[in-house]
Amino acid sequence: MTSPAYDPDNVFAKILRGEMPAEKVYEDEHTIAIMDIMPQAKGHTLVLPKKPSRNILDIDPDDLCHVMTTARKIARAIKKAFNADGILVKQYVEAAAGQTVFHTHVHVLPRFEGVPLKHHSGEMADSDLLAKNAAAIRAALAELEDNHAS
Amino acid sequence: MTSPAYDPDNVFAKILRGEMPAEKVYEDEHTIAIMDIMPQAKGHTLVLPKKPSRNILDIDPDDLCHVMTTARKIARAIKKAFNADGILVKQYVEAAAGQTVFHTHVHVLPRFEGVPLKHHSGEMADSDLLAKNAAAIRAALAELEDNHAS
Repeated sequence: MTSPAYDPDNVFAKILRGEMPAEKVYEDEHTIAIMDIMPQAKGHTLVLPKKPSRNILDIDPDDLCHVMTTARKIARAIKKAFNADGILVKQYVEAAAGQTVFHTHVHVLPRFEGVPLKHHSGEMADSDLLAKNAAAIRAALAELEDNHAS
Repeated sequence: MTSPAYDPDNVFAKILRGEMPAEKVYEDEHTIAIMDIMPQAKGHTLVLPKKPSRNILDIDPDDLCHVMTTARKIARAIKKAFNADGILVKQYVEAAAGQTVFHTHVHVLPRFEGVPLKHHSGEMADSDLLAKNAAAIRAALAELEDNHAS
């Protein structure tokens, strides 16, 4: 199976190298989680491995585990932060599936009864609003961590 | 964070106990993969952990790793089996997000340029067609395994 090569100039690689800004909500040895700047719902977060891979087709299985362990934390934090009724977790793999940045990332977003998802409009969200939602997710992560430790 | 309890009478628990049939394409110590009987695309497959959990909010992180390692195998096999242009990998978490069976499962489905996803119609797919698609995925899994081993 041939997969196109990883392009180190993609936006997420630049964010990981600190060459572009992002609203980060979580970081550990293997992963980061950042706010999607064109959110389909309040608190729409992306989880990325630090190591380069294009998507689930070429990612190292261990790295995929790291990503999903973080996605689980983010899902729990988003549910708590926004009192969400549900969560959607998704990966678009290659352009035909909707992937636009070719560094592996998992979308984690809250769902609310009767509220449809917004479409990716191509319009960037207000940065103050992103910062506020990011703060709410960080606070929920800290509280869940506290609960886990106690 | 309170999550509703796991109900051992859900359909996937029954399939795992052999009390209901399913078109299985893969099985290992921790997971199985079965055909979705109301596919949104040809070869729409579900990956399930054998251990009970409701969804990503309560699953054990190690078990989530097992599920995603299998989902990666299935994604590669589906891409190969159907010459897909892309893959969609998704988890609906709780009813508000579209979850209908409350045993953790990951949807893996092929995407093709210009072909929209079918909506879940509530109509079951033809069982011969499911069996044919399952056979194609099993063959692709075997070929990828051979390539990996050589």
